[in-house]
Amino acid sequence: MSHDLVSLRRDLHRRPEPAWREFYTTARIAAELESRVDLDELHVGPDAIASEHRLAVPDDIELAEWYEQARATGVDETILESLEGGQTGLVAVLERGEGPTVGLRVDIDGLPRPESDDPAHVPAAEGFRSEHEDAMHACGHDAHAAIGVGVLEQIASSSFQGTLKVFFQPAEEVVGGGKSMAKSEHIRDVDALLAVHVGLDHPTGEIVAGIDGFLAVRHLEAEFTGESAHAGGHPEQGRNAVQAMAAAVQNLYGIPRHNDGRTRVNAGVVEGGSAANVIPEEARILAEVRGETTELMEYMDRKARHTIRNAAAMHECDVAFTTGAEAPSATSDQELVDIVADVAGRTAGVENVLERDELGGSEDATFLMRAVQENGGTACYVGVGTDHPGGHHTATFDVDEASIDHGVDVLSGAIERISRTRT
Amino acid sequence: MSHDLVSLRRDLHRRPEPAWREFYTTARIAAELESRVDLDELHVGPDAIASEHRLAVPDDIELAEWYEQARATGVDETILESLEGGQTGLVAVLERGEGPTVGLRVDIDGLPRPESDDPAHVPAAEGFRSEHEDAMHACGHDAHAAIGVGVLEQIASSSFQGTLKVFFQPAEEVVGGGKSMAKSEHIRDVDALLAVHVGLDHPTGEIVAGIDGFLAVRHLEAEFTGESAHAGGHPEQGRNAVQAMAAAVQNLYGIPRHNDGRTRVNAGVVEGGSAANVIPEEARILAEVRGETTELMEYMDRKARHTIRNAAAMHECDVAFTTGAEAPSATSDQELVDIVADVAGRTAGVENVLERDELGGSEDATFLMRAVQENGGTACYVGVGTDHPGGHHTATFDVDEASIDHGVDVLSGAIERISRTRT
Amino acid sequence: MSHDLVSLRRDLHRRPEPAWREFYTTARIAAELESRVDLDELHVGPDAIASEHRLAVPDDIELAEWYEQARATGVDETILESLEGGQTGLVAVLERGEGPTVGLRVDIDGLPRPESDDPAHVPAAEGFRSEHEDAMHACGHDAHAAIGVGVLEQIASSSFQGTLKVFFQPAEEVVGGGKSMAKSEHIRDVDALLAVHVGLDHPTGEIVAGIDGFLAVRHLEAEFTGESAHAGGHPEQGRNAVQAMAAAVQNLYGIPRHNDGRTRVNAGVVEGGSAANVIPEEARILAEVRGETTELMEYMDRKARHTIRNAAAMHECDVAFTTGAEAPSATSDQELVDIVADVAGRTAGVENVLERDELGGSEDATFLMRAVQENGGTACYVGVGTDHPGGHHTATFDVDEASIDHGVDVLSGAIERISRTRT
Amino acid sequence: MSHDLVSLRRDLHRRPEPAWREFYTTARIAAELESRVDLDELHVGPDAIASEHRLAVPDDIELAEWYEQARATGVDETILESLEGGQTGLVAVLERGEGPTVGLRVDIDGLPRPESDDPAHVPAAEGFRSEHEDAMHACGHDAHAAIGVGVLEQIASSSFQGTLKVFFQPAEEVVGGGKSMAKSEHIRDVDALLAVHVGLDHPTGEIVAGIDGFLAVRHLEAEFTGESAHAGGHPEQGRNAVQAMAAAVQNLYGIPRHNDGRTRVNAGVVEGGSAANVIPEEARILAEVRGETTELMEYMDRKARHTIRNAAAMHECDVAFTTGAEAPSATSDQELVDIVADVAGRTAGVENVLERDELGGSEDATFLMRAVQENGGTACYVGVGTDHPGGHHTATFDVDEASIDHGVDVLSGAIERISRTRT
Repeated sequence: MSHDLVSLRRDLHRRPEPAWREFYTTARIAAELESRVDLDELHVGPDAIASEHRLAVPDDIELAEWYEQARATGVDETILESLEGGQTGLVAVLERGEGPTVGLRVDIDGLPRPESDDPAHVPAAEGFRSEHEDAMHACGHDAHAAIGVGVLEQIASSSFQGTLKVFFQPAEEVVGGGKSMAKSEHIRDVDALLAVHVGLDHPTGEIVAGIDGFLAVRHLEAEFTGESAHAGGHPEQGRNAVQAMAAAVQNLYGIPRHNDGRTRVNAGVVEGGSAANVIPEEARILAEVRGETTELMEYMDRKARHTIRNAAAMHECDVAFTTGAEAPSATSDQELVDIVADVAGRTAGVENVLERDELGGSEDATFLMRAVQENGGTACYVGVGTDHPGGHHTATFDVDEASIDHGVDVLSGAIERISRTRT
Repeated sequence: MSHDLVSLRRDLHRRPEPAWREFYTTARIAAELESRVDLDELHVGPDAIASEHRLAVPDDIELAEWYEQARATGVDETILESLEGGQTGLVAVLERGEGPTVGLRVDIDGLPRPESDDPAHVPAAEGFRSEHEDAMHACGHDAHAAIGVGVLEQIASSSFQGTLKVFFQPAEEVVGGGKSMAKSEHIRDVDALLAVHVGLDHPTGEIVAGIDGFLAVRHLEAEFTGESAHAGGHPEQGRNAVQAMAAAVQNLYGIPRHNDGRTRVNAGVVEGGSAANVIPEEARILAEVRGETTELMEYMDRKARHTIRNAAAMHECDVAFTTGAEAPSATSDQELVDIVADVAGRTAGVENVLERDELGGSEDATFLMRAVQENGGTACYVGVGTDHPGGHHTATFDVDEASIDHGVDVLSGAIERISRTRT
Repeated sequence: MSHDLVSLRRDLHRRPEPAWREFYTTARIAAELESRVDLDELHVGPDAIASEHRLAVPDDIELAEWYEQARATGVDETILESLEGGQTGLVAVLERGEGPTVGLRVDIDGLPRPESDDPAHVPAAEGFRSEHEDAMHACGHDAHAAIGVGVLEQIASSSFQGTLKVFFQPAEEVVGGGKSMAKSEHIRDVDALLAVHVGLDHPTGEIVAGIDGFLAVRHLEAEFTGESAHAGGHPEQGRNAVQAMAAAVQNLYGIPRHNDGRTRVNAGVVEGGSAANVIPEEARILAEVRGETTELMEYMDRKARHTIRNAAAMHECDVAFTTGAEAPSATSDQELVDIVADVAGRTAGVENVLERDELGGSEDATFLMRAVQENGGTACYVGVGTDHPGGHHTATFDVDEASIDHGVDVLSGAIERISRTRT
Repeated sequence: MSHDLVSLRRDLHRRPEPAWREFYTTARIAAELESRVDLDELHVGPDAIASEHRLAVPDDIELAEWYEQARATGVDETILESLEGGQTGLVAVLERGEGPTVGLRVDIDGLPRPESDDPAHVPAAEGFRSEHEDAMHACGHDAHAAIGVGVLEQIASSSFQGTLKVFFQPAEEVVGGGKSMAKSEHIRDVDALLAVHVGLDHPTGEIVAGIDGFLAVRHLEAEFTGESAHAGGHPEQGRNAVQAMAAAVQNLYGIPRHNDGRTRVNAGVVEGGSAANVIPEEARILAEVRGETTELMEYMDRKARHTIRNAAAMHECDVAFTTGAEAPSATSDQELVDIVADVAGRTAGVENVLERDELGGSEDATFLMRAVQENGGTACYVGVGTDHPGGHHTATFDVDEASIDHGVDVLSGAIERISRTRT
């Protein structure tokens, strides 16, 4: 087990930063890479992403708060300043002569939720629990970042021929960062892209060579506006935005299932009204729609807007929509799946290799996968099993650190193999 | 027009304080009374109310903020300190020999809403617009306080025989203060109680001798708890608190109308969920129910809880209820209505007298009215017309200050008459 | 107790006929009148009503079935033939010299519901229970018809001066017959109109001189049309009319209560769909809306249509409306109320007289009342108490036959008094 | 094209009989078989099925009506009498020495819907349109019956070694007959079972060797009972069964989608209430639930009942459930799929062979398939393409009669091949 990588992972775990707030994280990875790998290029923040394609960026007050918090840790001021306004992430490049350009995408953001302080929770017991009350690495992106660094280190000292680019992507949890990296110039010459995720209910020692079943996703916000009135004196003068919202929620979940594949809808956040004695004038739904294909997601999006629009009309309210973050569906190419499966089968510590599995959720790595595939390249999303006590996104999620080495070894091995195959 | 009363009303208008935060208001009224009326007793804050019966008291942080704001105006520190923790309001007593004890109830709190800065809005044009961004005297309680002071002054120099008690009641807007005054010792010996409200869509020069139609009201909060799940990966594992809440809202408004009289229900504030991609685990409804009688309000309360409980169960959620503020219904006694009508008909500036009208809303003056009536006394709620450009509770509400004198004259006249009738 | 009237009432009770199917009833009343009263005119069927203003007429098959059933009893064929197509009802006229024209309106239809066969139910015990399985005189109109005959008889032998017209009105239960009598020529010269109802929760011996609180009512039918689809194979291809209907029902009951007075809405009959495995293509709501005033009924009608229209649109269905029967609100004139109250107070068997009470339901006598009032006349709706074991419209409803005489005596007395007052 | 089979199909088409009413159909097939095939056994009605396992049997009045209608056509009285009470269907057995027992299942019922009389609709143009106003062979079961007869005829004159059993199954459209045949003794010794369906959006000349994707299905009826009340006078006294039903429908369609596979729910038929002015006392939902697996169907069943139960409780109604017909999911065995695909590829008129396709609906052939598979045998559901102008279950559905021969040839060929393979 690489002690350096474990130590890096634990440090990141202690300071989780949610989407577009990865100020400490970006600076810390930059520092780690500079001290350990002889990179040819390191693009940071606005140089790593196409800033105008960022989705779901928080407001300035929120960004400023996390920025100041990162500064207080004493990170490199020059790097930090370059990240201002929520332009986070890195692209690290290693050039090793003629050969294919291989990409590896790892995501680095945390989640806005508290972490367990139960002594049975290893990060709590061993002193690397989150220092931020409302943030936690509850999805293993701390391990992903460590794997990214480890792969660069291992490839740097290997016989790899070609170019390796590691994309340390921000804002995956809000499907907000993938598009900005897929639109950057760095992706354009990538011939083969690997992406990685730990866990997903696979135990330590198990590798899934190619993960599919990414649901296309879109976030959608609806703001209802009616008219307030005194709830006791003149209920008939109101146009009730909460009643409209409730009718919308009831019927959103009732959008017909589609025979072409999985569809999803969720009214994830709702709110409305101002006081018990006032007919509510305003209400809001933050919803998401998903589909097994982008077409199915569009079907749900169309139906959801139609439902919401008519629920508003029923209660004589207006409604305005804002489209939020989104990600398409994607599939892993068989060529790469075969390589990963073969390499994994020969890797120490790997006891079981599954060729394929379904994710069942969404991921904006699909933006990068599709960009590479549309350019004629191939892409593959690799699962690295890890025993995790709690489920993903729960307060007791944790990774078995042994899986960090498995990830580094399988991905490095696959990258070398790709380089040999393509040369 | 009494310039002193107008000046007092404008000063209070400039510093509106919502329920239980009437720190400046209480101190200012106390100072005004001390400088202008030779009172026999002045009970302030915890001496004026039964603190344990306060309803809908805000949290300590909120109270502290308004407390400090009041202190910054330089009010009497001794009085201010006595109000700590949100114990506001006053009872002023004038004893003038043998005779009945007559009560007058005026309320003094503002509303948590911004005031218009339109130059056509008189307070804006004449420089006494609210100094607090999120508070406004949008219901005329500033004028009520001035009327209370004016009546004390006028009765003090009249031939009145008996005892006059003026109840400057806090927290009417949240139906939170009436009970605490009704439970205080001061109400016990009141033989006849008058309460007053300006406006209510009656123009300047019109008096309503007896207002009825107070709806009994109760606030009710329901907290739904389900179980979160990944909305894309495992929607079937969730127990959706927002779906439960929406089903409850849809069916709350559908509680059957009642043949015995008016009933009301409103889901005034709702919220739920944490993120677009998480099946919502928590949701909340802050509702109110009303009835033309207390029995009808209880009918609505029972039905509302039943509806909410089953909506929760339908979506496999738990629900917990908190009962908030409330007020009963009440009626004005004919004996006092006759007196007020007769006095009003002889009062300068009064052009029209209506014997009765319906309020159509709720008011916690009903707690005091009922307390007096249950002790064998009589009670009457008097409407003093005032031209008001905007509706009650809107950003452009204002009073025609001429109506302050009408209120003082009619109420003082009625109080004198009561004293003569009862002696 | 008049044995003849009891005997007539029991005969009608045995053969209840619902709206526009009063073939036997009309013929029976005609025969009864001809044998007992020396009438000046008797208008039957199409001569009694303005046929084109009939509302809620059943279809031809239904009419034909009841017609044949009546024929089988052996009633007068000539009269029966004149009623063809559901033109039922009678107007009986008695002319007694100079004087006012006084009208009395009684309704004669039964209800489409089975009657109890419990031996404790008097009609069952005494052998005059309904012979028609699905019809019953469950609202006392059999007694009303008997009272109408009794009044004619009594006035015929009295000192009454003027003209008496008794309107035996069909189809009250579907608010379908009042309009057609109000539009007939017979109502035009009526100076004073009395209408009568037994029971209404008032005991035998109690008279309500003037009933008010008639709710204006309108029936409304909505037909939803969507598109069917295989519920297993292609749910997404359907446009679900039942889902639309359910959303409409949920929100219909949630139309805001109105501060101006009582409002009602009921989705009284609904149906939809064709098979468990087909997404429903069609659905239907038969609703009614009511209001304390005609304006409030119109408010409910407008809101109901709006709600239904948007519920249909939400589920991509079309909807077509049919307006059914209706009746306005009306009030009893004080002048007549005073007369009835005074007469009732002097009538044998009457122990208690209430001046006013509220109906709380609807009645299409209001069409006749309004027609007379608009012509400058007066109208009054009289309640004649009767002990009734079951509630109105239930299987065990029955009248205390002693109240038939009370009705005859009070109404005849009032008619004579009106004649004296007006002459 | 076999003229005899076309002629049989057209005769059956002219007299479609819905589930358990296949009196004419059963007698007609029996007569046809007796005149054309030298059978070893023919089991009819109660001898063909396990009567006690029939599902969704109509009531006696309905059965009697169709029985009399069949009798009127002059069919064999002895056979007809054996079918009394809705015991329809046949099992025809051909024994040809040693060898495997091969089964073929064809269904024979029609649908309760009218047929198009458009001259462009071939059955209308050529004079074999349904003689029954409310029934139609709109799913091709007339062709299935003809294919069953044709296969018996062809195998009888072939070199087939073993036993052939053809199951002419009643009541497939209500998933009511499969279970009763699967529970009969005739299925027990079947080694390999073929089932067949024409059309399913596959054109003439196309064969699907193995159809999968049968959704498990269950029908569920919920009867709500509340309490009626006068909708104008006392809405508060009602317990509204239609409101309960509407809340149930709204939330049924909102049962969470399941990540393990396809789920379905449909409130296919609803009704409730008695009159516009009565708060509805009764309402009914006839629903169905489905799942990609039997477990998923059970999940939907559990959630549906829970939803309905709580919707009833919310409106203070009782609810009673009746479980209707059902069918499990099933899959086609690869061994038989390979045989059918190979035989089809060599069959005249067959231009295209698909190995697999998904049904996307339900079918109670699954009961027979599972019974055979549980006994160690194999099963396969074969699709025979046919150009059909209208969709299945629509008024203009029709089959291209050329496909009858394709069906006979492919199935007979496969049956012979199975016999050779297994011997």
